[in-house]
Amino acid sequence: MSLRIGVIGTGMIGQDHIRRITHVLPNCEVTAVTDVDRARAESAAAMTPNAAVYDAAAPLIAADNVDAVLIASWGPAHEEAILPALDAGKPIFCEKPLATTQDACLRIIDAEVATGRRLIQVGFMRRYDAAYKALKATVDSGEIGAPLLFHSVHRNASVPKGLYTSDMAVSDTMVHDIDVSRWLLDDEVARVRVTAAKPNSLGEDLRDPIFAVMEMRGGALATVEVSVNIGYGYDIRGEISAEKGAASLGESNPILVKTSEKFSGRVPADWRERFIAAYDAEIAEWVIAASKGGATGPSAWDGYAITAVSDAALKAANTGEAADVTLVDRPALYGN
Amino acid sequence: MSLRIGVIGTGMIGQDHIRRITHVLPNCEVTAVTDVDRARAESAAAMTPNAAVYDAAAPLIAADNVDAVLIASWGPAHEEAILPALDAGKPIFCEKPLATTQDACLRIIDAEVATGRRLIQVGFMRRYDAAYKALKATVDSGEIGAPLLFHSVHRNASVPKGLYTSDMAVSDTMVHDIDVSRWLLDDEVARVRVTAAKPNSLGEDLRDPIFAVMEMRGGALATVEVSVNIGYGYDIRGEISAEKGAASLGESNPILVKTSEKFSGRVPADWRERFIAAYDAEIAEWVIAASKGGATGPSAWDGYAITAVSDAALKAANTGEAADVTLVDRPALYGN
Amino acid sequence: MSLRIGVIGTGMIGQDHIRRITHVLPNCEVTAVTDVDRARAESAAAMTPNAAVYDAAAPLIAADNVDAVLIASWGPAHEEAILPALDAGKPIFCEKPLATTQDACLRIIDAEVATGRRLIQVGFMRRYDAAYKALKATVDSGEIGAPLLFHSVHRNASVPKGLYTSDMAVSDTMVHDIDVSRWLLDDEVARVRVTAAKPNSLGEDLRDPIFAVMEMRGGALATVEVSVNIGYGYDIRGEISAEKGAASLGESNPILVKTSEKFSGRVPADWRERFIAAYDAEIAEWVIAASKGGATGPSAWDGYAITAVSDAALKAANTGEAADVTLVDRPALYGN
Amino acid sequence: MSLRIGVIGTGMIGQDHIRRITHVLPNCEVTAVTDVDRARAESAAAMTPNAAVYDAAAPLIAADNVDAVLIASWGPAHEEAILPALDAGKPIFCEKPLATTQDACLRIIDAEVATGRRLIQVGFMRRYDAAYKALKATVDSGEIGAPLLFHSVHRNASVPKGLYTSDMAVSDTMVHDIDVSRWLLDDEVARVRVTAAKPNSLGEDLRDPIFAVMEMRGGALATVEVSVNIGYGYDIRGEISAEKGAASLGESNPILVKTSEKFSGRVPADWRERFIAAYDAEIAEWVIAASKGGATGPSAWDGYAITAVSDAALKAANTGEAADVTLVDRPALYGN
Repeated sequence: MSLRIGVIGTGMIGQDHIRRITHVLPNCEVTAVTDVDRARAESAAAMTPNAAVYDAAAPLIAADNVDAVLIASWGPAHEEAILPALDAGKPIFCEKPLATTQDACLRIIDAEVATGRRLIQVGFMRRYDAAYKALKATVDSGEIGAPLLFHSVHRNASVPKGLYTSDMAVSDTMVHDIDVSRWLLDDEVARVRVTAAKPNSLGEDLRDPIFAVMEMRGGALATVEVSVNIGYGYDIRGEISAEKGAASLGESNPILVKTSEKFSGRVPADWRERFIAAYDAEIAEWVIAASKGGATGPSAWDGYAITAVSDAALKAANTGEAADVTLVDRPALYGN
Repeated sequence: MSLRIGVIGTGMIGQDHIRRITHVLPNCEVTAVTDVDRARAESAAAMTPNAAVYDAAAPLIAADNVDAVLIASWGPAHEEAILPALDAGKPIFCEKPLATTQDACLRIIDAEVATGRRLIQVGFMRRYDAAYKALKATVDSGEIGAPLLFHSVHRNASVPKGLYTSDMAVSDTMVHDIDVSRWLLDDEVARVRVTAAKPNSLGEDLRDPIFAVMEMRGGALATVEVSVNIGYGYDIRGEISAEKGAASLGESNPILVKTSEKFSGRVPADWRERFIAAYDAEIAEWVIAASKGGATGPSAWDGYAITAVSDAALKAANTGEAADVTLVDRPALYGN
Repeated sequence: MSLRIGVIGTGMIGQDHIRRITHVLPNCEVTAVTDVDRARAESAAAMTPNAAVYDAAAPLIAADNVDAVLIASWGPAHEEAILPALDAGKPIFCEKPLATTQDACLRIIDAEVATGRRLIQVGFMRRYDAAYKALKATVDSGEIGAPLLFHSVHRNASVPKGLYTSDMAVSDTMVHDIDVSRWLLDDEVARVRVTAAKPNSLGEDLRDPIFAVMEMRGGALATVEVSVNIGYGYDIRGEISAEKGAASLGESNPILVKTSEKFSGRVPADWRERFIAAYDAEIAEWVIAASKGGATGPSAWDGYAITAVSDAALKAANTGEAADVTLVDRPALYGN
Repeated sequence: MSLRIGVIGTGMIGQDHIRRITHVLPNCEVTAVTDVDRARAESAAAMTPNAAVYDAAAPLIAADNVDAVLIASWGPAHEEAILPALDAGKPIFCEKPLATTQDACLRIIDAEVATGRRLIQVGFMRRYDAAYKALKATVDSGEIGAPLLFHSVHRNASVPKGLYTSDMAVSDTMVHDIDVSRWLLDDEVARVRVTAAKPNSLGEDLRDPIFAVMEMRGGALATVEVSVNIGYGYDIRGEISAEKGAASLGESNPILVKTSEKFSGRVPADWRERFIAAYDAEIAEWVIAASKGGATGPSAWDGYAITAVSDAALKAANTGEAADVTLVDRPALYGN
């Protein structure tokens, strides 16, 4: 049986998921789409054989031939799509952020807890990348001892001029590093400090690069370089420094070319090239869980905690002071 | 519309394809299976929702709900499955070898040419591996100039004791290196010589390792090390040496671990681990082409030429002399 | 003509320099040695053909057959050896630290400035390492644009139990990272903050690892991980993140070994193994400059500035607050 | 006491050794030089403080202030310099080849054996390279089991037009690969076959690249790619394939630079850059042994055996047939 998916939000990322569901993954299909831009929804519907176009999220969620909901609208619209989907008991994949405020995240958590089971997977796709998975497995194996420090490097070739703001370096970009820091170190962030470097004069007038130091509750540190106009490519690095060893993401180098007194290999141009397999794996796992009526992977709790750390990091970046991260108690639904 | 596939041969590799068609790839399903071992066919059918079990290849091929045929039986049975499938005009995926004799390959070619279009894809999956594809693209781009020499290394941790023979190091193992040599250098092999090294005393009593030097028609060389009991893992290496540069397959290293005075990375344990994504891509491409009624990828001509080189290499290995490779003229169906 | 060198301090590092001068480098010899431990000085003298043993630094410095002075005594004794050597106009190589207080460093600077020429080289040997030199050359070439962030990693397998203190992680270990940060970024440190991670339970009861964020006067950042009980080896990493590129120290891997499902390479066991060639090059350069009556390489100013940053970093580590670094104006002798 | 060296032949390589002896290595000096070109000898003498110029090899060898002889003249002149130096009992460093004919090599061996001790070191410097030494140590440690196959790659950016002949690809270039093959596999070559690839059209009209397969007496294979006009740099690769593992020379990458969608590292431009430290170590070892009146390192026997293999390889290259290598019995002086 094919999982029948309704897609809310058919911008670039929504269309990419429609392509994935239609052409890459088995046992799933898009049966309904909606977007604030009706024409865009119709274009998206034309990408897949059997999708009806809806005027709003509510009737799409309610539709009989929608088994599960994929939310790729903009952040402020997530809550209003998630809550009725939870009410309807339909599995949800929600692109990051879960919601744009901690309060909204908490309302979502309350609603999910009220259903008694996990229904939401949030779109933090790095956990599905083969290299990150191997890093996590190495930490969890104990081979290198207890992790003490994780250093993450997040570099973009460039960001959209006039659209990307300094705060987005935290709320849109660094959130992925916050996610993997929490996941790899298996702990919550207690405090964060952000220092801006001399701005990159080749980018726009942004606070870029920035460097964050996060103190985890258990005492380990997570440090993050975010450089969003580095020009040469999309480069994601990470290394765990532990009690008796270290482990790092390898350089991605399918081939090595030697010409002109150099050996060289390609750096990915953007996140699509670097993480395309992770996106595929992320949705594949969601389809499997949703077909069974539930959800695995990054949870609403992760979405909430990451938003809380992001809020604190923004405050830290804007004040120059350390900012504490305070979280509500974690509901049992999300484990200990 | 889903491509309805009949699977002939449900041993290990056939079952793996059934799993892939059922759980990994979209827009395809297994509707029929057959095997010389009826019980094994029934087990295989149970892996997928809608597959009927047939007693023989002929009725499976003829079945109305079989759009395309995947052949994973043993080599000697390939011809008798391919010819009726060609008669029926059904697209065919055939695991290597295309057939076990050059004569059989030529009968298949004649039959396919008679249909007027390509219907057969042969299972040389390395061409679908991201690293080999990048290597091919680099050669074809002209960046490193005309290729002069390709060095291929094919190492297996071990081979099944008592089952794997010295000749299989050529006919089962080196055939993949023959395939990529022809493909990367875009040329046919003219002559081959095989030298056996001192045998690996930790393996069985085999001619292992062996080293082959192939002279291509255009003068480039392809050299191959085959070591099938090297113990440490499955290691596939390749480097093109060209007029103004070189290009090689990179080391596969998702993560680097540092412990005990060493940095280290994992070597794949076997071909499944190394090439799983290539197998997925190979069948995905076949499903797309077969859904349109044709075939792309490695052709019956490739299957024939590789068998001819393999035969010559076996003769060379057994006599210690160079052996010439003689091919019939290539039919226009297979390009120039 | 051979440079005749008097060695003050014949502990482990002094003996290593005597070996180097005697057996590795041309055009230099040890003609005099002294140590607080007379017996140790005599043993050291026996390592080289023509060395007289002196009871104190003063007569050694004054000796006619001593052209230049190499100081490898402990830090608190450096000033009392340097000042008379400057008075005598003899070139000086002084192991780090230049002196243990900023005041002492400034007295040395005043005395050197009074001589009107550079006579002192301080033992920060990383600048002579081939990889660091290549990194510096790449930054200076402009190939990657203006440097914005330097990340340094300094890991020791272990430190001497009962002897190494938490403060030494800054004053003995991180000083090398302070040196290369200043050198690579061509700037002075303005402010430093140090955060301690959860302590490594496999080491001694130390503040280890620590993470420092240094803000340079021009706005670039330098960040440092210091882990002194990481077990697996001596591992020095560094990466410059710049306006249009990045450059990092490569992994040192003379050979790659594949066994047991892994590829692996050696990590140096300690600083001797990693930097032996840099030590040789450092002293070789000093011998050449000293033979001409002067000094090049890391200067007394560098020694002073590094001590000032180290003092601030210690304060930062002990208070948890950021600490400012204030320097006197740089005398013209040390360039702009 | 400084070893007083007489240098015979003051061309490029002779001058490089004079520089090395004068400025890089301790405990040695050049006291005499000679060259067929008197003016060139005088220029060379001016590079070092105390060298007398001689009109011929004989008086230089006989000079009282010459303790040891370094021969860097052209190959045909080696024998006439070595024999009188052996008569005089003076240690000899002889650049490769030991001599240009096997007969001449045998006369030298006879003369050295007659002295009762080793006096000759031949200039095969790869054995002093840190990476080759690590490779040899790994093989000898047994970690990867018995070596079965060694693959060597020898690439030059270019060779001097009009001066370099096809035969020199064997006699001048591949001799280094012959040397390390014998050394790493600890065995003599029994048979060799050489296959020419399509010639590199960007080089001169040479048989280039070539590929050699050498069968060792014990059955292991050594294979060699020689490409002398590959353009991109000087690239020396080597890998041992053994019974339970493999070991290869690492890529030399002091730093990794990321710009323009690539990560890249430098390939050495020529043999000087790649092997400068090996040349230093080679002569340093010779100076130590010669100061004690003897020789270590590659022996006259090695020089003879390599010449014999080179002769066979030339014959093989010119005939297209395999050529056997026949050696006289090895004198006990050269071990078993």
